[in-house]
Amino acid sequence: MACLKSILALFLLFLIISGSDSMPRSKTVRRGGRIIKPCKRMVLYFHDIIYNGKNAKNATSSIVGAPAWGNKTILAGQSHFGDVVIFDDPITLDNNLHSTPVGRAQGFYIYDKKDVFTSWLGFSFVFNSTEHKGSLNFAGADPLMNKTRDISVIGGTGDFFMARGIATLMTDAFEGEVYFRLCVDIKLYECW
Amino acid sequence: MACLKSILALFLLFLIISGSDSMPRSKTVRRGGRIIKPCKRMVLYFHDIIYNGKNAKNATSSIVGAPAWGNKTILAGQSHFGDVVIFDDPITLDNNLHSTPVGRAQGFYIYDKKDVFTSWLGFSFVFNSTEHKGSLNFAGADPLMNKTRDISVIGGTGDFFMARGIATLMTDAFEGEVYFRLCVDIKLYECW
Amino acid sequence: MACLKSILALFLLFLIISGSDSMPRSKTVRRGGRIIKPCKRMVLYFHDIIYNGKNAKNATSSIVGAPAWGNKTILAGQSHFGDVVIFDDPITLDNNLHSTPVGRAQGFYIYDKKDVFTSWLGFSFVFNSTEHKGSLNFAGADPLMNKTRDISVIGGTGDFFMARGIATLMTDAFEGEVYFRLCVDIKLYECW
Repeated sequence: MACLKSILALFLLFLIISGSDSMPRSKTVRRGGRIIKPCKRMVLYFHDIIYNGKNAKNATSSIVGAPAWGNKTILAGQSHFGDVVIFDDPITLDNNLHSTPVGRAQGFYIYDKKDVFTSWLGFSFVFNSTEHKGSLNFAGADPLMNKTRDISVIGGTGDFFMARGIATLMTDAFEGEVYFRLCVDIKLYECW
Repeated sequence: MACLKSILALFLLFLIISGSDSMPRSKTVRRGGRIIKPCKRMVLYFHDIIYNGKNAKNATSSIVGAPAWGNKTILAGQSHFGDVVIFDDPITLDNNLHSTPVGRAQGFYIYDKKDVFTSWLGFSFVFNSTEHKGSLNFAGADPLMNKTRDISVIGGTGDFFMARGIATLMTDAFEGEVYFRLCVDIKLYECW
Repeated sequence: MACLKSILALFLLFLIISGSDSMPRSKTVRRGGRIIKPCKRMVLYFHDIIYNGKNAKNATSSIVGAPAWGNKTILAGQSHFGDVVIFDDPITLDNNLHSTPVGRAQGFYIYDKKDVFTSWLGFSFVFNSTEHKGSLNFAGADPLMNKTRDISVIGGTGDFFMARGIATLMTDAFEGEVYFRLCVDIKLYECW
């Protein structure tokens, strides 16, 4: 199921799904014939502002590796193939960059395809809010021209001890090559 | 069990194993005394052509990080220690680079040892064939002078939802420092 | 539970815990009301000596990616934000750099935050001792100013086939910006 515009929408959806098992759903997970529901679900946003040589104060990420034809202040040609970016991005409950963060998305992404924008991500959500302490760890391919992309939740700590699952990414907004916002629909299927 | 030269061989092996449980096998996995068989097994190849300054058209990977003594068009001395390579490699069913790809191997590898060729891999198999949609995510150490090396399948999406397992890597061929082909024997032990 | 100064201490602790279930413990894991104990526990150390332009012989790691304001022989300003380091570090049973290694810690770390030392790790413990063959794979965020930090064990091979769990990191020592020693308290909760 795609990322939704707000937590409210998620809540409403939850009511609908709970109330009616005969509702058509975009993706149903079955195991041994039985329908599997996530043991935990969260929809969150994170915001990435790439350093471009002029925005040192606001930047939350930086190019740190580039191919022979690239540099560290402009994403490379050929669909940014070969760029390595490190980030420390605020996580928010809604799509507003200025909302109070509930944690930080920390890690890296690389652009790994010459002829279409495609990346690979290794990162963590490090939560620090009244609701959640702990972290979720993610890895996977992100063919970012697709409307939705699934990556793996490969582990967790604290409140998310031993978690596993799937995270569906959706590009919620982008401005030129400096800012983008991802919506992340986290569905855990292993909760301890 | 090592990678095999073709899918045909795998199929024959499958018949032999299925037909005779008393066959000796190179590696038997047991859990609580019981023999565990993979819930899914696949043997695939992928092909890496490193950018060397002259092969822009054919290259599927590029050096994007290097140590102080290295550069972006030649793998560094000291067993390439410190080189970071990003790749988008075709996956094929057999060992022929020109076979129709069933997907792409996308991610990165690093060379992480000074005195012997050793790498560490983080990547995905992104499938796009009539048989498989979805992805498998891998991570692990690859001491590439060993005949076979095991890395972890840390998750999956789509047809490989929530998968975990082991992938045995084998260098099937290499040409100088520009081309190599890996055979990957994927054994999933968690299938949903 | 924090890392301990020696295996002896761990052994003593083990006796205490085994002998008295009413002992207070710093962190108790429960699942469905029941207390969960690790199926395997190990405390190990690894030692990282960063290349600084002068210590080529002893260095076990090297900066291989850096932001626009950084270079390859000195960790960058702003909490080293943007530095990428590749390592091949000896693993020892005690905190002595010169003890016989039981394996190598191999992989990478990045510094991913501007205003406080924070890193993200992707690496393996590759064991090669009489006691253990095989590898454990790790990923996660390391807010290294915290006394203890948890990352995920995302898989394993050989003796650690299909392992999952948590590793608690503790900085056991550091000398300037060239040497540090981490104590790793590995707790596996999935053993096959």
